[in-house]
Amino acid sequence: MDYEAAAMDSLARIAATKPLVHQITNIVVANDTANLTLGYGALPVMAYAPEEVAEMAALAQALVLNIGTLSAGEIEAMLIAGRSAGEAGVPIVLDPVGAGATRFRTESALRLLDALPVTVLRGNRGEIGALLGAGQVRGVEAVGDEDPREVAVAAAARFGVVTAVTGAVDFIADAKGVREVHNGDPLLAAITGSGCMATAAIGIMLAAGGDPATQTALALATYGLAAERAATGSPGPGTFRSRLLDEVAALASTGVAGLRIVEAA
Amino acid sequence: MDYEAAAMDSLARIAATKPLVHQITNIVVANDTANLTLGYGALPVMAYAPEEVAEMAALAQALVLNIGTLSAGEIEAMLIAGRSAGEAGVPIVLDPVGAGATRFRTESALRLLDALPVTVLRGNRGEIGALLGAGQVRGVEAVGDEDPREVAVAAAARFGVVTAVTGAVDFIADAKGVREVHNGDPLLAAITGSGCMATAAIGIMLAAGGDPATQTALALATYGLAAERAATGSPGPGTFRSRLLDEVAALASTGVAGLRIVEAA
Amino acid sequence: MDYEAAAMDSLARIAATKPLVHQITNIVVANDTANLTLGYGALPVMAYAPEEVAEMAALAQALVLNIGTLSAGEIEAMLIAGRSAGEAGVPIVLDPVGAGATRFRTESALRLLDALPVTVLRGNRGEIGALLGAGQVRGVEAVGDEDPREVAVAAAARFGVVTAVTGAVDFIADAKGVREVHNGDPLLAAITGSGCMATAAIGIMLAAGGDPATQTALALATYGLAAERAATGSPGPGTFRSRLLDEVAALASTGVAGLRIVEAA
Repeated sequence: MDYEAAAMDSLARIAATKPLVHQITNIVVANDTANLTLGYGALPVMAYAPEEVAEMAALAQALVLNIGTLSAGEIEAMLIAGRSAGEAGVPIVLDPVGAGATRFRTESALRLLDALPVTVLRGNRGEIGALLGAGQVRGVEAVGDEDPREVAVAAAARFGVVTAVTGAVDFIADAKGVREVHNGDPLLAAITGSGCMATAAIGIMLAAGGDPATQTALALATYGLAAERAATGSPGPGTFRSRLLDEVAALASTGVAGLRIVEAA
Repeated sequence: MDYEAAAMDSLARIAATKPLVHQITNIVVANDTANLTLGYGALPVMAYAPEEVAEMAALAQALVLNIGTLSAGEIEAMLIAGRSAGEAGVPIVLDPVGAGATRFRTESALRLLDALPVTVLRGNRGEIGALLGAGQVRGVEAVGDEDPREVAVAAAARFGVVTAVTGAVDFIADAKGVREVHNGDPLLAAITGSGCMATAAIGIMLAAGGDPATQTALALATYGLAAERAATGSPGPGTFRSRLLDEVAALASTGVAGLRIVEAA
Repeated sequence: MDYEAAAMDSLARIAATKPLVHQITNIVVANDTANLTLGYGALPVMAYAPEEVAEMAALAQALVLNIGTLSAGEIEAMLIAGRSAGEAGVPIVLDPVGAGATRFRTESALRLLDALPVTVLRGNRGEIGALLGAGQVRGVEAVGDEDPREVAVAAAARFGVVTAVTGAVDFIADAKGVREVHNGDPLLAAITGSGCMATAAIGIMLAAGGDPATQTALALATYGLAAERAATGSPGPGTFRSRLLDEVAALASTGVAGLRIVEAA
C-alpha cells in the first residue's frame, strides 16, 4: 500500500470537510489536543456535560475518550456519548490513561470497552497489558517488560478492536495482522500528553474515513514524522512542544516523505 | 476618536492599578487566558466554587464568563458570580462558546444573558446568530453564512448589551452604532482559544474603566495587532502561540501604531 | 553545605529512580507542572477521583496539593490522598493558592494543614500571611507589605512545617533556621503558574529523598536558575515559558553552576 499517498489523501479530505472531533479528555492535555486537531485541519470540540454529550457526539465525525483525569461522573458522560456515537456510526477511540496504576482506572477502561462499540484502543504496553490482566504501570508510564507486539495482538483478539500499542515503535493490530510505525522522536517522551495527542491524531484520521487500522497507522506515522521534524534544532522539550504543532500544521503543504509504516502480518 | 491614545491610556491604567479579572472559563484555554491577562498587565484569577465566586467576583474589576466546557454546576456558579458582580458594579463579559452546537449551550447562554447584567457579549457569527435563533455552529465554529454585522446589530438590540461578533473583521455594536476592527491574522484561527482570549482581552480592557463599546474595540484591536506582529516570522501556529503572548506583553512599551478601528455607525 | 553537589546528586537520583509525583492541582497549570515534572526527570500523574487518590498517593514518592481552582469535592479528595500519603510515609507539599482572597480558600488551606501531615508549605507572602491571619491577597497575588522572612518563620513555627515564602528572594524556614534562595528572574512573574511550578519542583525534589528544607531550597534554586537561563534572549513571556522547560530539562547535563542558596539562620 502507498501510505504516503493515503496520508496525503486523508489530509486533503480533512481540509475539504473539516470534520468535527468530539473529545472527552483530561484537563492536562485538552489544550494540546485541541491545537493538534486544528493543526491537522479538523475542528475540535470538548464537551463533557451529560446534558449535551449525546447530541455533540452524534454530530461529530469521531469521538475521543481519554480517562487521564477521570471521575465517576465523567465516565457516565463517556458512556452516554459513546452510545450516541455508536448509534450514529461515529468511530470511537479510547485511551485508557493510567490503566494498571489504580483499580479505578483499569475497571473504568474495561467498562467503557465492554459497553461501547470502540473502534480503536490506544495505550502504552503497560496500560494495554493491564487491561489484559498483566501490564505494569507507574502513574501513566509503562514500567514492566511486556512485549508490545504481543500485547497489541492479544488485546485486538480479546476485545475485538483495532489496538495500537505505542512506544519507540508503534504496533497496530487488528484481526488481519500487525502494522509497525517507526516514526517518532525521543523528545515525545519528554512532554506530557504525547500519548494523548497520538490518540487524538487517531481520532482525527478516523474522522477522515477509511479502514480503522490503516487510519490509525497513518495517524501515528504522520504525528511521529512531525515530531521528527520538530526535534531538529529544538534545544529541549519546551521548544519542541511548540515546534511540534508547527510541523503538524505544515504536513499538508510540506508533504509526508519519510513515513515509515511496515506491514508485518 | 484617537484610538491609539485611548489604547495607550488604558494600558497605562492597567499597569498602574493591576485590576483583577475573575474568569470562570473552560479547561482548554484557562492557561492561555491567564497568561494573556498577565501579558496585558492585569491579574487573573480563576475561581469556580459556589462557596467563593460571589466574594471573588465582588473583589474583581471584571468578570469573564465562558461556557466552553460548561456543566450544570458551573452555570450555577456563573449565576452566583454574575449576580454578585452586578451588585458590585463589576462589568461582565459573556462568551457563549458553542452556542448553536447543542441545545444545552444555547439555552445556558440565553439563561445567563437573561439573568445577569451582562456588559459585553462576544462570539463568532454562528454562536451569536444561534442566540437569535438562526446561527449555524459545528462544535465551536461558525459554518453558516450569516452577515456578521447584521448579527451584531440584531443581538445588541435584542439583548441590550454591547455585542462583538469576531471574525476576519470584528463588528462591535451598541445602541449608538457599529465599530469595525480590522486588526488580526489568519493564524489566530489556527490555534485553540483565540476567541476565548479575545473575550478575556475585553474583560481586561473593561477592567481599565471607560465606555464598554470603546473598551471592547480597544481590546480586539490591540489583541489583533499583537497577533499581526506575532505572525511575522512564525513558521506555524505553535511558535505563533508563544510569540502572541510575547507581543501582548510588549504592547505597552512597543506602542500600538497600526490599530485599525473604523467607526461605521 | 555544597548545594551544587547536592543538587546534582538529587537530579541523578531522580534520573535513576524516576519517582512518581502525584499532583492534585488546578486546571490552569496542570499541563505546565506535568511538563516540569518530566523536565526534572520524574513522572507526573494527575489523579483526582476519590475512588483512586488513596491508591495513587500511596504509590507515589511525593504528593502535591494545590488549591488554585478548588472545589468542595476536590478538598475531600485531597484529604483522602493526604491521609494515604501520610500512612505510606509519602511527603506532602501544600500550595494554598489564593488564600486570603476568599474565606473558602483560607479555610480550606487551614483545614488541609490541620488534618494532614504536610511536609512543606509554599506560597507568596500574602497567601502564607493570610494563613497566619494577616496577609493581603488580590486574586492570587500578594499585595500587602508583609516581610517575607518573618512570614516564613512564623508559619514554620505555627504549623510545624517547612515553609517556603517565595518572591524576588525565597525564604525557607524550618525549626533550625532560614535559608534564602536568590535565583530567579522577573519574567517568572509574567507567566501564570510560576508559583505552582515552584511548588511542583519542591514535590519533585522531595521525591528524591533527603532533608525537606534542603530539598526545598534545591528545588527553588534549580528552578530559579533554569529561569535565569531561559530569560536570556527571550523576547517576552511566551518564549520564556517554552524556554524555561528547555532549561529545566537541561539541568542534569548543563549543571547547576550559579545556584545561590544562603544559610541565614
